[in-house]
Amino acid sequence: MRVNAYAAPAEGLPLGPTTVERRPVGPEDVLIAVEYAGICHSDIHTVRGEWGPKPYPLVPGHEIVGTVVEVGPRVTAHRAGDRVGVGCMVGSCGRCAPCAGGDQQYCVDGPVFTYGSADRDGRATQGGYATHLVVDAGFVLSVPAALDPAAAAPLLCAGITTYAPLRRWGAGPGRRVAVVGLGGLGHLAVKLAHALGAEVTVLSRSPKKQEDARRLGADHWFDGSDPAAFAELAGRFDLIVNTVSADLDTNALLGLLTLDGVLANVGAAPGPMQVDGHRLGSARRVLTGSMIGGIPQTQEMLDFCAAHGIAADVELIPAEHINAAYERVLASDVHYRFVIDAATFA
Amino acid sequence: MRVNAYAAPAEGLPLGPTTVERRPVGPEDVLIAVEYAGICHSDIHTVRGEWGPKPYPLVPGHEIVGTVVEVGPRVTAHRAGDRVGVGCMVGSCGRCAPCAGGDQQYCVDGPVFTYGSADRDGRATQGGYATHLVVDAGFVLSVPAALDPAAAAPLLCAGITTYAPLRRWGAGPGRRVAVVGLGGLGHLAVKLAHALGAEVTVLSRSPKKQEDARRLGADHWFDGSDPAAFAELAGRFDLIVNTVSADLDTNALLGLLTLDGVLANVGAAPGPMQVDGHRLGSARRVLTGSMIGGIPQTQEMLDFCAAHGIAADVELIPAEHINAAYERVLASDVHYRFVIDAATFA
Repeated sequence: MRVNAYAAPAEGLPLGPTTVERRPVGPEDVLIAVEYAGICHSDIHTVRGEWGPKPYPLVPGHEIVGTVVEVGPRVTAHRAGDRVGVGCMVGSCGRCAPCAGGDQQYCVDGPVFTYGSADRDGRATQGGYATHLVVDAGFVLSVPAALDPAAAAPLLCAGITTYAPLRRWGAGPGRRVAVVGLGGLGHLAVKLAHALGAEVTVLSRSPKKQEDARRLGADHWFDGSDPAAFAELAGRFDLIVNTVSADLDTNALLGLLTLDGVLANVGAAPGPMQVDGHRLGSARRVLTGSMIGGIPQTQEMLDFCAAHGIAADVELIPAEHINAAYERVLASDVHYRFVIDAATFA
Repeated sequence: MRVNAYAAPAEGLPLGPTTVERRPVGPEDVLIAVEYAGICHSDIHTVRGEWGPKPYPLVPGHEIVGTVVEVGPRVTAHRAGDRVGVGCMVGSCGRCAPCAGGDQQYCVDGPVFTYGSADRDGRATQGGYATHLVVDAGFVLSVPAALDPAAAAPLLCAGITTYAPLRRWGAGPGRRVAVVGLGGLGHLAVKLAHALGAEVTVLSRSPKKQEDARRLGADHWFDGSDPAAFAELAGRFDLIVNTVSADLDTNALLGLLTLDGVLANVGAAPGPMQVDGHRLGSARRVLTGSMIGGIPQTQEMLDFCAAHGIAADVELIPAEHINAAYERVLASDVHYRFVIDAATFA
């Protein structure tokens, strides 16, 4: 089955319309008519070759919401007409300890990513910038009816990426959580941490986002480029979720943590961190990272968002604006996520 | 009260006999006749000025076992004749959250360390290389009768330093624990992790310690300088307790951790660590540090050691051998802790 899509024809080239082949619907597969596909910074890193060589043409997109067209005979969790979502993964070994524990993102063989990855048949996976998608049912999420489908799309990557460390490290009532960076990830981290009951502080270098931070649910806002803010906030937080994909001063962030506080990086900073061992040991602080989330937790997150009326703040665009949107993402000129109307791939 | 002691007369000078003043026994104080004082690498760092300027003359020693001579009228936990211990701290604010939680080592004002610290009366504290010591009863531990008092002395620092991260990060049955470095700290980490029920692996650069590792309770030994060992052990451990006070390859150690594995540094490496964020995030690994332990947990550790027949392997020396012992510690020529017979201070 050939379907319309938008692809980068080669590394570093602008995306344009094309068609890609989707496999026949197997016994455990779900055929999805894509309605919305979010634009994640990862899409841009990938097609620019910043994350290593990839097969081309390459269709990005791993924040996908659509409706089920057809299911294979062994699929029981989804049926035609259901609204569903697909995130960053479309497969994993299913047998290793992380997979058995529902942490498919940490599959010891590496998960099959939604695009640019070797699928089980050896062909390269192609993502959600397309009209249709065929995915193993085990990697298809149910999107609750209470969620706006366009605004739900970014939850599949940006949402779970921030929800996972918030849950793992106990964001909740009585806990002080800082979110560093107020972009696609950060704005969802604020909403989620607030809904979980934590006291939320935003550290951002964009003073013009201060009003937004409060509207999104933050209790406090500080200028992340101001040394005085770091002095004032020393020893304050139980958890910092750092969403910035640039090299920040890790020791300065660690200094904001209280006893047993946790700095969880979810961005992808290019360089190594310089970490002062005493900064960790002097208050038993934790430095860690987190990568998206497992399928069960992604479903939990979607259900949590539906129950709390949370979704992304999105700007809906047609397919022909993808390349311009990429430029605006790189310029941090998006509030807070571009979502492509998949009808425009047709 | 003036008591005999061994002190460094000035930074970098050898230790020699002297006398120091001990305060009168206050209502909440305990006067202890020292029997044994362990030699910790910290003692050497301190008198060599490697941890900043200190008041001199300075009496080191924070692994102290002795018997109670006299207690103040408000002391109920100890009485004359009891065998007791004193570790790295002799005071803290008692009011902050860490103190309230029994984590006096993380007192927000900083604890009063057993030597070289400003005591509550403003005078410099003087440590356990002495015949007698006066200590607030809240910082005096009970040393169970089942423990050999000389071999118990190193538990007050080296023991609690390794016990704390083992307990915090769940060393126990079904968990794989690696101990990096087989010195004063490491040899106790092995005994404790083994007694807690973990599968214990030693990573050491001293092949001649392989037999010792197994005798101490290790299940496996690997050469920590061998890249093949790192390849073989990739993704193996739930917890690594790194006892080495030198700059190791942090990313290489992180690569030995399984999903959610923890690298806890208890040594004091001089330089910053270079940490690859992907190495953390790709398996939700944790990098942390730990600094001694609180008073309640130190007592728990002593009771645990008594119940499991654990104490340090020690070499008992007279006071006049202290300077020679320091040289041997620096040359890693000690199996595994020097303990001074306090009778020789007299």
